[in-house]
Amino acid sequence: MMTEKNTIPYKIYLEEHEIPTQWYNMRADMKNKPAPILNPGTLQPMTAEELGHVFCDELVKQELDDTTPYFDIPQEIQDFYKMYRPSPLVRAYCLEKALDTPAKIYYKFEGNNTSGSHKLNSAIAQAYYAKKQGLKGVTTETGAGQWGTALSMACAYLGLDCQVYMVKCSYEQKPFRREVMRTYGASVTPSPSNTTNVGRKILAEFPGTTGSLGCAISEAVEAATTQEGYRYVLGSVLSQVLLHQSIIGLETKAALDKYGIQPDMIIGCAGGGSNLGGLIAPFMGEKLRGEKDYRIIAVEPASCPSFTRGKYAYDFCDTGMVCPLAKMYTLGSGFIPSPNHAGGLRFHGMSTVLSQLYHDKLMEATSVEQTAVFEAATKFARTEGILPAPESSHAIKVAMDEALKCKETGEEKTILFGLTGTGYFDLVAYEKFNNGEMDDYIPTDADLEKGFAGLPKVE
Amino acid sequence: MMTEKNTIPYKIYLEEHEIPTQWYNMRADMKNKPAPILNPGTLQPMTAEELGHVFCDELVKQELDDTTPYFDIPQEIQDFYKMYRPSPLVRAYCLEKALDTPAKIYYKFEGNNTSGSHKLNSAIAQAYYAKKQGLKGVTTETGAGQWGTALSMACAYLGLDCQVYMVKCSYEQKPFRREVMRTYGASVTPSPSNTTNVGRKILAEFPGTTGSLGCAISEAVEAATTQEGYRYVLGSVLSQVLLHQSIIGLETKAALDKYGIQPDMIIGCAGGGSNLGGLIAPFMGEKLRGEKDYRIIAVEPASCPSFTRGKYAYDFCDTGMVCPLAKMYTLGSGFIPSPNHAGGLRFHGMSTVLSQLYHDKLMEATSVEQTAVFEAATKFARTEGILPAPESSHAIKVAMDEALKCKETGEEKTILFGLTGTGYFDLVAYEKFNNGEMDDYIPTDADLEKGFAGLPKVE
Repeated sequence: MMTEKNTIPYKIYLEEHEIPTQWYNMRADMKNKPAPILNPGTLQPMTAEELGHVFCDELVKQELDDTTPYFDIPQEIQDFYKMYRPSPLVRAYCLEKALDTPAKIYYKFEGNNTSGSHKLNSAIAQAYYAKKQGLKGVTTETGAGQWGTALSMACAYLGLDCQVYMVKCSYEQKPFRREVMRTYGASVTPSPSNTTNVGRKILAEFPGTTGSLGCAISEAVEAATTQEGYRYVLGSVLSQVLLHQSIIGLETKAALDKYGIQPDMIIGCAGGGSNLGGLIAPFMGEKLRGEKDYRIIAVEPASCPSFTRGKYAYDFCDTGMVCPLAKMYTLGSGFIPSPNHAGGLRFHGMSTVLSQLYHDKLMEATSVEQTAVFEAATKFARTEGILPAPESSHAIKVAMDEALKCKETGEEKTILFGLTGTGYFDLVAYEKFNNGEMDDYIPTDADLEKGFAGLPKVE
Repeated sequence: MMTEKNTIPYKIYLEEHEIPTQWYNMRADMKNKPAPILNPGTLQPMTAEELGHVFCDELVKQELDDTTPYFDIPQEIQDFYKMYRPSPLVRAYCLEKALDTPAKIYYKFEGNNTSGSHKLNSAIAQAYYAKKQGLKGVTTETGAGQWGTALSMACAYLGLDCQVYMVKCSYEQKPFRREVMRTYGASVTPSPSNTTNVGRKILAEFPGTTGSLGCAISEAVEAATTQEGYRYVLGSVLSQVLLHQSIIGLETKAALDKYGIQPDMIIGCAGGGSNLGGLIAPFMGEKLRGEKDYRIIAVEPASCPSFTRGKYAYDFCDTGMVCPLAKMYTLGSGFIPSPNHAGGLRFHGMSTVLSQLYHDKLMEATSVEQTAVFEAATKFARTEGILPAPESSHAIKVAMDEALKCKETGEEKTILFGLTGTGYFDLVAYEKFNNGEMDDYIPTDADLEKGFAGLPKVE
């Protein structure tokens, strides 16, 4: 094992002054820009004014800007980043040894903050712009709870009110997630709830529903637009979120560059795209500009396969159909995945930016089944020490598979993957796995057709 | 806020090659050595041979050695340390600002590993020596669960069997702790159990008991001594544990020295003494050698006040009275604290090393009540981002009080405290606090007298 001073350490930490001070906007380098989001009434591109009723002004600017490559990170956000960043880029020496592979495996670990995931990178940015605009508070939804936790931490730090609509099945299965948010001063409502019109409507139509991210989004948007001094914020899918999350990839690249390392492939889990879009940002930038080439692989659960089995079409982002239409790989806004354990990877659609990149064959996608994911997670935990989030473990599974292919071929490939978070709040799922009670769920073609049937007609 | 390159960063990380490669043994510099541990039958000092039936040989040597100041850390342990060390030394800029204090506050954060606490530092060492001795496995007890989690991680890494006796009330209140240990391959038994003679005896005498650390120790020791190829390991109290934990203080001191910082006071929570003894080690060394002076403060819960209200006397370390007698500040091995939330700080006794140092007035001790601790924890979480363990929050509370005293006097003191772990598995306690349902418990003098009545007669 390498332990001498001048070799690559187990963990590469940038120094504080090396943390990037700008975010990178992949769209600026894309020849084929993501299709604009549309007003669901007029089917015309949403204007800044229209979006300003829902989102903070500065975030609307970021959302609509597909030409500016770099955005300065405000000093206040940089200061907050310093409390938990830089995150470590880890050389997985122990995993390499356990797999007996010639591959070199690196992972960027974003779980070493109390929210337990990368979501904090965008939460503090969105909360900061809300505060700067003089708002009282923000509303949001959360599924697995990572985004809600992150947002409540950011709002506590800035003294903003934080109202979270939490998908009901998650609210019930994860009381501790709720309690972390309350400790940070947030109010947490199980969704669908009878506190909003859209919630009441969904409850009337589907009385026993355990909720979905799409429902919770609808409720949070309604809550934001019906209270004075509030706006809605969202933890994934949006282009602004990918912009903020680019800090992950920029730090990773800076750390690799310090040691002259270039990855052959970059692997990340994909739900709405926030982590993957952030991790790959500067690498995809080089690819888009024709400077370098990388294999880029999105990994999604077989139970919610928007890239691998979805349609590239305009769709609603929410179940209540109050949000703009986005052109993306989607399973249909009516698709409600089984209540499986890939907590954060259950959204029916995908980032418009990543959808365009995938459509243009600039990246690949693959799907994996739950039991295999937890096998990989357990192996990883036992060798690398970190208990991974189920979401992150999708990337671990594929990284391990690629490393084993290298063992067969003898190739010394450099594999980089994103370890987005920790599994502390997913132990109900681990327990199921430990007890041998976990099963896999793959939607049938007929299941998918039901979701596709609800797609809006847009040409 | 300081953000320039040449000022002190938010987080000071040593480089990998700067991680200490030796542990420091405070006893070597103590004029008054801790009293020897005694065989409960003969009342003579325990010999290495006697201890070797219970503990690994190399650990027995470390336990009995009160003259060697430095022990080399084996390379395999150094490699494991690199997976999660160096831990960050954090400058609490945000907390200082929130308290509006001229004090400079630093904390050494030991919670950034999956076990969630500093316990891993000794767990890997003890597991390593067991493996080196060719053993099949180890047995142990766990109260709050931090030690059991850490040991199961270390054993998984080395391929050792790990049998954990978990205090019953904790086993029931913290199913997720149990599940983390199972994920790492450990077997977990609620204690008292009917798998041991001592467990059956305690159950017969106290049928409804929710257990105690003392009971669980007795069971684990019996399990180790009645199985071929097993030894018992312990996460606190023992001098070997303080030796391993000195890595905390050594790293802290190296990081402070890099920036020419000298703390005025060092604050740590104290249950059995593993964290405090580790944090203060090199500073106490300087104090013992007359090189420098520091104020050193142990903080314990008012509900289990071994330093502040206990007796300095020989006592059993376990309820079953099978362990050696140790001279320590103790509430009596029969003292069972109320099932409150200071999870890891519920042991009736205290490290013999720290007891001697306290007796010699080389350190102070204070006790704090539970509700005030959770108030401090919540304030800390909201300003510094990290959700602290209740144990650690005892130190936070006193550090904040000291910082506020500096605000009154205008003194720019430098305060260092140990943030031993995270509160992810303590959210039942946070929930109680958030709901305003937490109460304080202070044993009456009569309660304490009951514990003292059981002290063995040793002259």
